[in-house]
Amino acid sequence: MIPTPFDSNPRTRLVFGPGVLDRVGALARELGATRALVVTDRGIMAAGHVARAASSLEAAGVAVVLYDAVRENPTTLDVSRCVEAARAGRADFLVGLGGGSSMDTAKGANFILTNGGEMKDYHGVGKARLPMLPLIAVPTTAGTGSECQSAALIADEATHVKMACLDPKAAARVALLDPELTVSQPRRVTALTGTDALVHAVESAVTTRVTPWSQMHSREAFRLCAGALEVVLAEPSNLEARGRMLLGAAMAGIAIENSMLGAAHAAANPLTARFGLVHGAAVGLMLPAVVRFNAEVEAARAGYRDLALAAGLVSIADSESTAVDRLVAHLEHLRRVAGIPATLAEAGVDPAMVPQLAADAARQWTGGFNPRPVDAASFETLYRSVG
Amino acid sequence: MIPTPFDSNPRTRLVFGPGVLDRVGALARELGATRALVVTDRGIMAAGHVARAASSLEAAGVAVVLYDAVRENPTTLDVSRCVEAARAGRADFLVGLGGGSSMDTAKGANFILTNGGEMKDYHGVGKARLPMLPLIAVPTTAGTGSECQSAALIADEATHVKMACLDPKAAARVALLDPELTVSQPRRVTALTGTDALVHAVESAVTTRVTPWSQMHSREAFRLCAGALEVVLAEPSNLEARGRMLLGAAMAGIAIENSMLGAAHAAANPLTARFGLVHGAAVGLMLPAVVRFNAEVEAARAGYRDLALAAGLVSIADSESTAVDRLVAHLEHLRRVAGIPATLAEAGVDPAMVPQLAADAARQWTGGFNPRPVDAASFETLYRSVG
Repeated sequence: MIPTPFDSNPRTRLVFGPGVLDRVGALARELGATRALVVTDRGIMAAGHVARAASSLEAAGVAVVLYDAVRENPTTLDVSRCVEAARAGRADFLVGLGGGSSMDTAKGANFILTNGGEMKDYHGVGKARLPMLPLIAVPTTAGTGSECQSAALIADEATHVKMACLDPKAAARVALLDPELTVSQPRRVTALTGTDALVHAVESAVTTRVTPWSQMHSREAFRLCAGALEVVLAEPSNLEARGRMLLGAAMAGIAIENSMLGAAHAAANPLTARFGLVHGAAVGLMLPAVVRFNAEVEAARAGYRDLALAAGLVSIADSESTAVDRLVAHLEHLRRVAGIPATLAEAGVDPAMVPQLAADAARQWTGGFNPRPVDAASFETLYRSVG
Repeated sequence: MIPTPFDSNPRTRLVFGPGVLDRVGALARELGATRALVVTDRGIMAAGHVARAASSLEAAGVAVVLYDAVRENPTTLDVSRCVEAARAGRADFLVGLGGGSSMDTAKGANFILTNGGEMKDYHGVGKARLPMLPLIAVPTTAGTGSECQSAALIADEATHVKMACLDPKAAARVALLDPELTVSQPRRVTALTGTDALVHAVESAVTTRVTPWSQMHSREAFRLCAGALEVVLAEPSNLEARGRMLLGAAMAGIAIENSMLGAAHAAANPLTARFGLVHGAAVGLMLPAVVRFNAEVEAARAGYRDLALAAGLVSIADSESTAVDRLVAHLEHLRRVAGIPATLAEAGVDPAMVPQLAADAARQWTGGFNPRPVDAASFETLYRSVG
């Protein structure tokens, strides 16, 4: 097989280490900041992370403006409010400090601040024409990987339809990865965001878009998360394991940036939309079934085997089918440990809704990158297999 | 253990794929080139690669100037001649096309062209003050990893002392990784350069400077080279395996850039200097003994285990000592397959010289990064163990 070409096109510099939050000021300064808008939420404020970031910025001579009203699953309204705060504060720099919602709100606002118009003008890929403000992303969960992605996920305030706005210019200049910031997460958040990162690693490893570059990051993400997720759940203050999860989530972000996602995300979104099942639980619930389903495709089976090898679940002496079995078993084990439902019943999903869910799932953009073609009938089979 | 901090500081964009040499013109243009000096050697000229690069550059509107007199292990004289060619041709851009010597000559010339003075002014780290010309590195061997490093290795023409001149500004903007260019290498070159890449992967995985970032690249480099080296030797035109070797060598280059090398390189250099043993053979000869020697140190043992896991030589169920055993056995196997001497006797080294070699080795800079401290006595033990 001829190797798949790729262009690594590095966008985001990773600065990793316990305590590196204190470098945010120097890094912002290095990137030309004079007035930085810190985009965050009240929980992150209460944890004291914003105060630390602000004092680092001020010590470096960067004035601080604050937008601390980020909500989960940000909408066009959140973006408008954030834009207002940036304009009022004459910000020339952005710091997204928090979970995926804070980083996405900062990225979304950046489109409007620099290129004008409305969020929907940027729905799709590469729609921004003008340069954007430099952004430092500082994740406080090990999950979304938004810190390494050029996409802002923003929902329409009226219709609640999620818009993926992708542009290389929207990517953070620096992802500041400080494991200490992730220690104070509630256990449930650690479990849900960690599962999300794990699913990113597995799904991105086998899409129709994979390259040697994306797969290197998928494997590394899986190696890190597959080993560390159980540890951070058992020992929340284990900084080594927290560091591995945080790096794993970032590596999965790079993998997604280069290869997209697949059917587990397509199947999960309707569970969230119709039954309010949180994203991490929805993708974690569906993933093992999707792996079994995709393993019928040769290239996917090879990708899964590489994941199992990366995590040491098998050695090269083992067959592909053993590798897939061990991978699925390990995913099911981690699902249990993370307290994620294993069946639709446990998730409170009405089985009568399966045909409707399957129809919704078949319309998800992300299913188009799944290695095995998926339609409503396949999704129905997938849902029934976890029924 | 608290995770080691790192700053990924991405310098070199990787563009990978069969035939990507044809993109050199567009990429040079994108980086602002108007007149590019192609730094190469006669063998690469004869292989037709230079003509292809030149026609791509010219098609993109970039004038081509040629320096095709690169010699192996370039000296200050080579750099001066290359500088002359660049000045005569008014080059504002450099393309290093060939093995490590071509890329290092281009990097060395870049220091002088942009910052003046002599090569020795840049011996060490970060000595250049002014910006340097943009450089595209196009390796035709899968070995040195120079395409991903900010170091130029230039020998003093008079004393033949090698100077490592490191500066972030000297790193290539783009590494163009085209597996097709590596197919025409003579078998012996494939074996020697491939062994060099393999040794880079292993040594960089356990130095005193390792970070999670460097180790990710060491593991990926080892995974790729440990599997593909035997294949490219058996099937020289297997483009998939050539691609894996080329990527592996580049990943090892990134690993070295972030964590340096160790005792195998320190022990090898005197064998090259005093007995003319080529570099790839010298490092390949010494590596298994160095792994055994370093495995006494806990952190090194863990790093070696991760390499064995990455290549699937073991699974997580296996012990560290099993992992080290399998790693050493695999390295010895590849040494045999590559036709690298396994003993000093086979390499034509006079055993009476061991004390002198050990004294030389103990003075090598690179030994200072070895995970287990090394002195002349340790090197004597190492040499005797392959005696």
